[in-house]
Amino acid sequence: MRERVTMADVARAAGVSSATVSYVLSGKRPVAPATRAAVESAIDELGFTVNTAARSLRTGRSSLVALIVPDIANPFFAQLAAILQEELRGLGIHVVVCDTRARREEERALLAEAVQQRFAGVVITPFRLLPRDIRTLTDAGIPAVVSADVPFGPVDLVTPDARTATRQALERVTAARRRRIAMIAGPRDATGGDPRLELLRGLARQFGTSLPRELVIRGEHTREAGAEGFAELMRRRYRPDAVFCANDVIAVGAMGKARELGIDIPGDVALVGHDDASFASLVHPQLTTIRYPAEDVGRAAARLLRGRLDGRSVHRTVRVKAEFVARASA
Amino acid sequence: MRERVTMADVARAAGVSSATVSYVLSGKRPVAPATRAAVESAIDELGFTVNTAARSLRTGRSSLVALIVPDIANPFFAQLAAILQEELRGLGIHVVVCDTRARREEERALLAEAVQQRFAGVVITPFRLLPRDIRTLTDAGIPAVVSADVPFGPVDLVTPDARTATRQALERVTAARRRRIAMIAGPRDATGGDPRLELLRGLARQFGTSLPRELVIRGEHTREAGAEGFAELMRRRYRPDAVFCANDVIAVGAMGKARELGIDIPGDVALVGHDDASFASLVHPQLTTIRYPAEDVGRAAARLLRGRLDGRSVHRTVRVKAEFVARASA
Repeated sequence: MRERVTMADVARAAGVSSATVSYVLSGKRPVAPATRAAVESAIDELGFTVNTAARSLRTGRSSLVALIVPDIANPFFAQLAAILQEELRGLGIHVVVCDTRARREEERALLAEAVQQRFAGVVITPFRLLPRDIRTLTDAGIPAVVSADVPFGPVDLVTPDARTATRQALERVTAARRRRIAMIAGPRDATGGDPRLELLRGLARQFGTSLPRELVIRGEHTREAGAEGFAELMRRRYRPDAVFCANDVIAVGAMGKARELGIDIPGDVALVGHDDASFASLVHPQLTTIRYPAEDVGRAAARLLRGRLDGRSVHRTVRVKAEFVARASA
Repeated sequence: MRERVTMADVARAAGVSSATVSYVLSGKRPVAPATRAAVESAIDELGFTVNTAARSLRTGRSSLVALIVPDIANPFFAQLAAILQEELRGLGIHVVVCDTRARREEERALLAEAVQQRFAGVVITPFRLLPRDIRTLTDAGIPAVVSADVPFGPVDLVTPDARTATRQALERVTAARRRRIAMIAGPRDATGGDPRLELLRGLARQFGTSLPRELVIRGEHTREAGAEGFAELMRRRYRPDAVFCANDVIAVGAMGKARELGIDIPGDVALVGHDDASFASLVHPQLTTIRYPAEDVGRAAARLLRGRLDGRSVHRTVRVKAEFVARASA
């Protein structure tokens, strides 16, 4: 590693104090033209570059925004990242994506890292994080936007409005005379429980059916959990004829397991996902799902973040409308 | 924004010198137990946290490694990110993923950002970057690993060995009496051209066929380019009966277009992808592909990077064996 040229080296070469070099760089105090010229030519000669670590000590900000997500391999988040980057590019901001593997200690560590690196902002989809954890950011004055199904502490929020879409999904499923409705939901210890489960349960009653406890499987938001959850449901005496999933990754795992078990989707069991991740229209049968539009979520998050960066401090919530997408699986 | 607690504040509260606080934090010199206890309780009381910006001024390094990729929505890269994170977690390193949208100016901007933020290291899959651009990193002494099909300047390289797998793919396709072989390749101005095209072309001759210029379509590594490329090929007078794609994202775009056009895969046209991205086994028909194992690539990149972080400076190349995966599409 080449030795780093320091401000002190520049000062020595120019025959001035380090403070003078600093004034030339920051422009915070006037410097005599001849002195400035000497400093600038020393900077050129030595190949000195401003160390951002030093700069961020002064200005308090990098040009990075962290998007912190529970699963970078879920295309929903990849799409969110791409939109966020598009929306913030004009500000000279780079979005870096961090994967927490849905672990609270990782979520906390990344918030701490965002503070220590003086990131310009954070957009986070918490999974096991607690609302009080977010104070790490707010205490440090780092603009934060949360994308979650439930309110999450004193920060800006982008959240789905999925009531109508979930009702439409139930309408379609019950119109096909299915009554034994199951759900492969998120884990019990996820932040805010599983609002998608609560919503489905509440609406199921309106359709003269229910979501009995024995037909709710809890697990991670993974393909493996979807496969295991589906197999588990198929072993139930009261076997479901429609399975809702907390997201599309789970649904795709369930679909693979159905194929393995020789269970026809949708003939034997209807399958409904959530999100409309990019693969939803690629799988066979194409996945019926509740679309949570990543573009709208990304745009809303970018707008809220820009507001914070501009110094606006009103705590806001943006509701993004989900949309029922009827395809072949239900 | 809350006033930042400094090491000097901690020192004052504990009745010790700042140097002592520093020794407690760094463990670089022994500190008497009672003194250590006093410092630690002052740290707790004041809510002091180590300022990474300050720390990186001293050590010259953050604890972030950037994974810079052309398309974060390509599950191959998401999987690579997950493996890299697993492999580097033990070092207290966080991997942040940056998407360049395959644009050279973005690639260059992110390298510059990695230097300014004093990242601990960079793993990059260049798309339009030139080998000389990588000097931004090497000049700044930032450990860099390139994952690419071709050598790329004076940095450690992870690169595929896909000759056997490509030969097997050609064997399968020609055994099914297909001779009119086409390819939807990458863009002309991609770094290093398209080595996957060159490899296929070279091997095709050995199978008594060729890859005529009119059956090579150049485009981005996107679903849209795959769809357009496939439509274009189907309009050719000399219509292909087998289409190879530069990656699975392109292949999936081609597959969607085939369905739209009423062209049966593999009945009318065999389709072969590259990478074995997570969706390859989910699409219908399941995609036959040349598997470039993201786990092995991620592990190799992590190993090379760890070597650099330990100060080893031998320039190394790791070849990762690709594997032919025969599924339904060819």
